Amino acid sequence: LLQIALFLYEDMTALDAVGPYEVLARLPDTEVKFVASTPGPKKTDVGLVLTADSSLDDVPEPDVIVIPGSGKVPFLDDPAAVDWVRQAHEASQWTTSVCTGSLLLGAAGVLEGKRATSHWAVREYLRNFGAEPVSERVVIEGKVITAAGVSAGIDMALALAGYLAGDAEARALQLVIEYDPQPPYDSGSLEKADPETQQRATEVLPRGLGQPVPR
Amino acid sequence: LLQIALFLYEDMTALDAVGPYEVLARLPDTEVKFVASTPGPKKTDVGLVLTADSSLDDVPEPDVIVIPGSGKVPFLDDPAAVDWVRQAHEASQWTTSVCTGSLLLGAAGVLEGKRATSHWAVREYLRNFGAEPVSERVVIEGKVITAAGVSAGIDMALALAGYLAGDAEARALQLVIEYDPQPPYDSGSLEKADPETQQRATEVLPRGLGQPVPR
Repeated sequence: LLQIALFLYEDMTALDAVGPYEVLARLPDTEVKFVASTPGPKKTDVGLVLTADSSLDDVPEPDVIVIPGSGKVPFLDDPAAVDWVRQAHEASQWTTSVCTGSLLLGAAGVLEGKRATSHWAVREYLRNFGAEPVSERVVIEGKVITAAGVSAGIDMALALAGYLAGDAEARALQLVIEYDPQPPYDSGSLEKADPETQQRATEVLPRGLGQPVPR
Repeated sequence: LLQIALFLYEDMTALDAVGPYEVLARLPDTEVKFVASTPGPKKTDVGLVLTADSSLDDVPEPDVIVIPGSGKVPFLDDPAAVDWVRQAHEASQWTTSVCTGSLLLGAAGVLEGKRATSHWAVREYLRNFGAEPVSERVVIEGKVITAAGVSAGIDMALALAGYLAGDAEARALQLVIEYDPQPPYDSGSLEKADPETQQRATEVLPRGLGQPVPR
């Protein structure tokens, strides 16, 4: 049984976790654990409550680690989570993040000397952890995969599904979740968005984002 | 305050709700209510628990209705939900669905004589409710919007955000959730997937999907 640990925490962004989950939980012979420093309900950054069913100690050696990000607490100051990531990463097949979740990977030393990405609003802070920030949607470095902001977790999970179960299975999962994106606008990355859109997006982001992240 | 009612139920697909939620909950002057026939935790079709905080009676006249679908119970046989949709639709600004959620709109009489879409596996059953099934990602008919399977709710919500708050705000929200999709495969619709992928996807879908839906 392939064990996937999805890390949940207060003020995280729900879609960062739910995007990868919808793909990975449908892989054959797979179990998904929703882990947290303290199991129970977690209120996400714009209100929806997600529930963690396992403690970090319950899932010490998952095959796949998925760390979602947050629009409120870009840098999660949780030593237990940092320790868990550091130790779980030693035995993992894949260690992954979505959005600002890469900063937690960074804090655990996972990104030292690696190319990595994050939500555009905090991408540069990856340097604090010895990583080289790159503007790519999904960055694969050995067994470490970092994805860009929020929705990028879906693309990341489909790539990961291909590695875990083969291209045919991953293509089937893309069809199951009917992922044939047709956004009505073309402003989904910093490079594509005009200055007005960038300005407004920065205003919409909760205040926590864009703050310096301590080493 | 714009009130958005997101309908939750047992065995629904989490991403059907969480995709639109991440966009719509970030609109200015907006409140999102997670409504259910019985409030409380709902175990979704591949395991994640989402929590409904309001009863249907608590939110009788939302401005926006969002009905997610399910991979397990394509046709939700819940008379209270059907009545709520029928009545709430009379006063709504927008009535929307994702994936098989359109069948609940159909059961409430909302789709009579309209073009509509759904998850590809159940799309033809829209005829049972007097609708004309079409293979489009997002179908807008007056104030009724239906979206294709699972991930299509994100595209739907961005289009809806544009109608509710203007193109500039919707573009900013696209950048906030960094929705610049780059799927690693191109099999996200029935039309694009090869026969092997279609066959495997049908096997992966829970058994409930593909069953005839009674009128």
